[in-house]
Amino acid sequence: MFFASDNWAGAHPNIAAGLSANAGGFSTAYGDGTLDQAVYQRFSEIFEREVAVFFVATGTAANSLSLATYNKPGGISFAHRESHVIEDECGAPEYFSGGSRLHAIDGALGKIDPHNLERVIGRFAPEIVHWGRPMAVSITQSTEVGTVYGLDDIDAIASIARHHKLPLHMDGARFANALVALETTPAEMTWKRGVDIVSFGGTKNGCWCAEAIVLFDLDRAKELAFLRKRAAQLFSKSRFIAAQFEAYFKDDLWLDTARHANAMAARLAAAIEDSASAQLAWLPQANEVFAVMKKAEAERLMAAGAAFYDWHRPHGFDGHIGEDEALYRFVTSFATTDESIAQFEALLRAGSEE
Amino acid sequence: MFFASDNWAGAHPNIAAGLSANAGGFSTAYGDGTLDQAVYQRFSEIFEREVAVFFVATGTAANSLSLATYNKPGGISFAHRESHVIEDECGAPEYFSGGSRLHAIDGALGKIDPHNLERVIGRFAPEIVHWGRPMAVSITQSTEVGTVYGLDDIDAIASIARHHKLPLHMDGARFANALVALETTPAEMTWKRGVDIVSFGGTKNGCWCAEAIVLFDLDRAKELAFLRKRAAQLFSKSRFIAAQFEAYFKDDLWLDTARHANAMAARLAAAIEDSASAQLAWLPQANEVFAVMKKAEAERLMAAGAAFYDWHRPHGFDGHIGEDEALYRFVTSFATTDESIAQFEALLRAGSEE
Amino acid sequence: MFFASDNWAGAHPNIAAGLSANAGGFSTAYGDGTLDQAVYQRFSEIFEREVAVFFVATGTAANSLSLATYNKPGGISFAHRESHVIEDECGAPEYFSGGSRLHAIDGALGKIDPHNLERVIGRFAPEIVHWGRPMAVSITQSTEVGTVYGLDDIDAIASIARHHKLPLHMDGARFANALVALETTPAEMTWKRGVDIVSFGGTKNGCWCAEAIVLFDLDRAKELAFLRKRAAQLFSKSRFIAAQFEAYFKDDLWLDTARHANAMAARLAAAIEDSASAQLAWLPQANEVFAVMKKAEAERLMAAGAAFYDWHRPHGFDGHIGEDEALYRFVTSFATTDESIAQFEALLRAGSEE
Amino acid sequence: MFFASDNWAGAHPNIAAGLSANAGGFSTAYGDGTLDQAVYQRFSEIFEREVAVFFVATGTAANSLSLATYNKPGGISFAHRESHVIEDECGAPEYFSGGSRLHAIDGALGKIDPHNLERVIGRFAPEIVHWGRPMAVSITQSTEVGTVYGLDDIDAIASIARHHKLPLHMDGARFANALVALETTPAEMTWKRGVDIVSFGGTKNGCWCAEAIVLFDLDRAKELAFLRKRAAQLFSKSRFIAAQFEAYFKDDLWLDTARHANAMAARLAAAIEDSASAQLAWLPQANEVFAVMKKAEAERLMAAGAAFYDWHRPHGFDGHIGEDEALYRFVTSFATTDESIAQFEALLRAGSEE
Repeated sequence: MFFASDNWAGAHPNIAAGLSANAGGFSTAYGDGTLDQAVYQRFSEIFEREVAVFFVATGTAANSLSLATYNKPGGISFAHRESHVIEDECGAPEYFSGGSRLHAIDGALGKIDPHNLERVIGRFAPEIVHWGRPMAVSITQSTEVGTVYGLDDIDAIASIARHHKLPLHMDGARFANALVALETTPAEMTWKRGVDIVSFGGTKNGCWCAEAIVLFDLDRAKELAFLRKRAAQLFSKSRFIAAQFEAYFKDDLWLDTARHANAMAARLAAAIEDSASAQLAWLPQANEVFAVMKKAEAERLMAAGAAFYDWHRPHGFDGHIGEDEALYRFVTSFATTDESIAQFEALLRAGSEE
Repeated sequence: MFFASDNWAGAHPNIAAGLSANAGGFSTAYGDGTLDQAVYQRFSEIFEREVAVFFVATGTAANSLSLATYNKPGGISFAHRESHVIEDECGAPEYFSGGSRLHAIDGALGKIDPHNLERVIGRFAPEIVHWGRPMAVSITQSTEVGTVYGLDDIDAIASIARHHKLPLHMDGARFANALVALETTPAEMTWKRGVDIVSFGGTKNGCWCAEAIVLFDLDRAKELAFLRKRAAQLFSKSRFIAAQFEAYFKDDLWLDTARHANAMAARLAAAIEDSASAQLAWLPQANEVFAVMKKAEAERLMAAGAAFYDWHRPHGFDGHIGEDEALYRFVTSFATTDESIAQFEALLRAGSEE
Repeated sequence: MFFASDNWAGAHPNIAAGLSANAGGFSTAYGDGTLDQAVYQRFSEIFEREVAVFFVATGTAANSLSLATYNKPGGISFAHRESHVIEDECGAPEYFSGGSRLHAIDGALGKIDPHNLERVIGRFAPEIVHWGRPMAVSITQSTEVGTVYGLDDIDAIASIARHHKLPLHMDGARFANALVALETTPAEMTWKRGVDIVSFGGTKNGCWCAEAIVLFDLDRAKELAFLRKRAAQLFSKSRFIAAQFEAYFKDDLWLDTARHANAMAARLAAAIEDSASAQLAWLPQANEVFAVMKKAEAERLMAAGAAFYDWHRPHGFDGHIGEDEALYRFVTSFATTDESIAQFEALLRAGSEE
Repeated sequence: MFFASDNWAGAHPNIAAGLSANAGGFSTAYGDGTLDQAVYQRFSEIFEREVAVFFVATGTAANSLSLATYNKPGGISFAHRESHVIEDECGAPEYFSGGSRLHAIDGALGKIDPHNLERVIGRFAPEIVHWGRPMAVSITQSTEVGTVYGLDDIDAIASIARHHKLPLHMDGARFANALVALETTPAEMTWKRGVDIVSFGGTKNGCWCAEAIVLFDLDRAKELAFLRKRAAQLFSKSRFIAAQFEAYFKDDLWLDTARHANAMAARLAAAIEDSASAQLAWLPQANEVFAVMKKAEAERLMAAGAAFYDWHRPHGFDGHIGEDEALYRFVTSFATTDESIAQFEALLRAGSEE
């Protein structure tokens, strides 16, 4: 019953096998090997256009370098108030850009409200140096609270970004979970909507460590190559990332693992919905489930072996949380088993029967 | 005949197996898992004292964060003119410290000359803000040109650092190769000599990606934790590094692979020594061999499948290099085979017989 | 009728005379001259304790270097949402600290609400690197909207800062205006309340360019000396700042000019209060007056030669602003004349008589 | 006998008068006032083309922001080993660019040797991220050791910069001294030779504080405006700089003061040449004189009231300096009097007569 985070899982067997299969032999280092090149090509196929691909070590690196790609003095990037770049990266995006600012935009359940975005960006005047100036917009897909921007949602954000001549970044740490939730294609979910650069995460969805920046604006690729190296994010034995991505994409493994994670979340949500002791806070759209329950009940579940975290109330959730209650987050992954869900379901039921 | 670099090899079978063995199950993320903790403990045993261990993605990250740990406004770090931090990291050490400077110190064959170091550091006056101020000393063990600081060499550098109250960093991207060359212990080669922080590299010696900062000054550990996260170098599924180090240290694998690489270098050097068409530039002490030969001969060797790079003349090498000659570098690793050396030897011999 | 800003005025005649009087002769450069030293001593007298004084070029520099003095990786400083550091410095505070963050705290009419401050700071957990960590608290005295923190207000903020072991910075771009408004002493308004570092502004109150960082925590003085030089804020002919401050403090000129500016603001406020066409938005406490009026009326006043700006609605002001109205800011200074106020009063009256 | 530095002088009477004359009245702040605009126009006339002018607080700021204007990740700027940017700015140029590097180029007597420059730049390969990449070339005119680049010298450097597509920066802290030494025009000494950006210093030549960046590449002006504000170098009462420059340029005051300083240096050099106890190290071309003398003699002169500094031996000076001797620097300025030179001459003579 490990629902603490999708990064508590290890690696999918195919990923591990992929690594082992590529351990022998010699290869050009620093991203120029045959396998690296093949995987870059695979990304272009998946995105249905030529893309520039940069492997990096962490999702934080992917996000920070993506924004740094569009860095300018006095720059301000706009992201959801509860986004990972704002809440969970120790200021890395600001650091990687030598002090650019992240401006928090509100919106219900993890998604930027386009009206808020327009209102905030619209206040800036390009010639007034004192105020700084807009630099980029960043959205998280799927969001930190398990919701998913629909294609029209992305259109609305992209339209504002385009109007203000700002690049649009997508933090895709859970890219695959959103993709299968929307039943769409990578191209439709990104550049066809106006996304310019993507943090493409494989780690949470079955890899050990496989994060890539996917850049559609090829003119910036050379600069990003220097940015990445200067940020100490260029792997020497780069093929260990490539090997993971090769296995990840093979036979659509990545879509299968994401579908599995989402399905497990839906089952978990149903179990909570059915329970007497917990209320689903809102409907999960990807692989994160949020529930309100009594703190005592949560402690009981944890004591019985369920791992999950309490969470702060997100903007736009106006459900009731009693004094003795709290909001809790449950995350599923490729490694979540039917058994663990059934076990949790039984545990929940046992509580209400006492 | 892959002698281009020790990072052209993949991973040692034991490392690959170690990863696969740990792919299942769930574990706390971000370096707090059971396996992570066990490996930190293993480092303390190996260094014969309590150390703080920080896994990072690359050797450049280890070096840059090590220096940033001792960052101060106007700070200047001293390193060998041909060191990796100066020549091969795209300015990452400066970037990670917001603009501190690297001051090049000369010395023969990759090793800082203590007299030069003292002369340069001695010029600074702590109260004159214009000049900036000394911040750290960094040495590379083994060096970029395959030589090794003896324990007394390290003593001499450490004594100067201590006199000027400067921390001493060791870039140990090839730590193991130096260690077995000196037939000493990690403790003797580092903190017992006065080293404060080590970039401990496993990647070049058989891992896929296993770099760690080993910090002896535990008071700085909390700051380094923030520095690492802010630099986007904190892995979520951290145990994939831990698993590599676990296998790396098991049954002294790391010492065996380093001994093998060094022995292969010695054999390669002997082959060159014996050849009519190449001259050994200086005696290798670790796993890098440098030779002078005719450019035409080098091209012939490359055409026949040998991979190696030409190199610039290092400070302190005053051997003759003719107009039609160049200096070349050959690197061996855990993966270098007897066969490849024999093949190269035969190839060399074939050339002089023509 | 120049009410656009207190930095539209030139220099007080005594300041200009002070500069001219010191133009001759030779003096040690970079802040070590006799006059510099005398002025530092004067600061210590004024603050009734030994202080370290650093002249800098701008208020933005004073603020940014003050916060940088307490910089730490992942650091977050807390300031009012409408503070100068957040709204008007083009990201300089973030830049000077290599990417530390400014977190906006709400509070009515320019003053941080202590409850909001405590609530926000209280959320951080020192051991969780992902979230970053509190670094400093900054208040503006007098505020951007012409209000003044009372001594008890400062006590309340300082108590929270102290509880969380955070330094307290005061942006005193209008230090003197607040000081005379409170009829207190520099010591009472700062270190006796728990303020650790002050941006002490002379420019808006009669100097050409005279900004100083006043540091009470002398242990940090050496670091700040390097920070200032590295930020290119160390003047060579430093006595041109010293000469201004000498004249500024002589015979309490600075208190007189501040009292004059505040009195002019009070007269202006009374004129608005009396007028039929403008409503005072809130009571001015220092030298800034805010009024709501019809846009057409504002245009009429501007066309007649009055200079002032429209302003955005500050947090905590819930007065009505009609569709055809706006909020306007009027700033007075040492150079504001009785005549200009009378002229403006007549102009206002003329409007309502039409 | 104040020969310590040209920044030990105060301000020329005309500069002081200019400031006083502009102290009254109101003006738009932040560089947009009528006087500011008039002075920008004056710069364009002086340089015989449209230029963008940015007032800043210090020469260090002018240099650091000039280089930051051309900043790029992994960037390396090339400057003379003994240049101010390398030796005397506490790492500000690196800091302002978030960690770009300054690479020291050797050359005799303060001037970059074009062959050395070409050799060093030529080594870089634009596609190899590890090495970083050339970003700018910076020359100092007149140099730190009182020599002056001839127009053909500048041509030679500019030609290399152009060949490598690098911008050429001129540190003109002593721009006027070089200009009158060459008897040329600002246009001829800068953009007509290929200079792209100039740190134009007025402070050492008679102002209190008047430094400007003169940018020929107008496309970069908008970025520099943000860079300057973010670096806290945008003055509010900007006209106090404009007023100084207005007086500086009026009736060619700046050329007169520079000619005076250079003439005083020539007289001082002649006095040294004639003396028995000091030898001129090399011929001064601007307002700095270097002499070798016995340390005891220097102490005698200092004890008698002469202020000057000892100096380290510059590259390219191979004159003999005995064990009991040292090299000393004497700087003259607009404020140096005939009397002080005569007094020093007499003092020197007195020594040899003893």
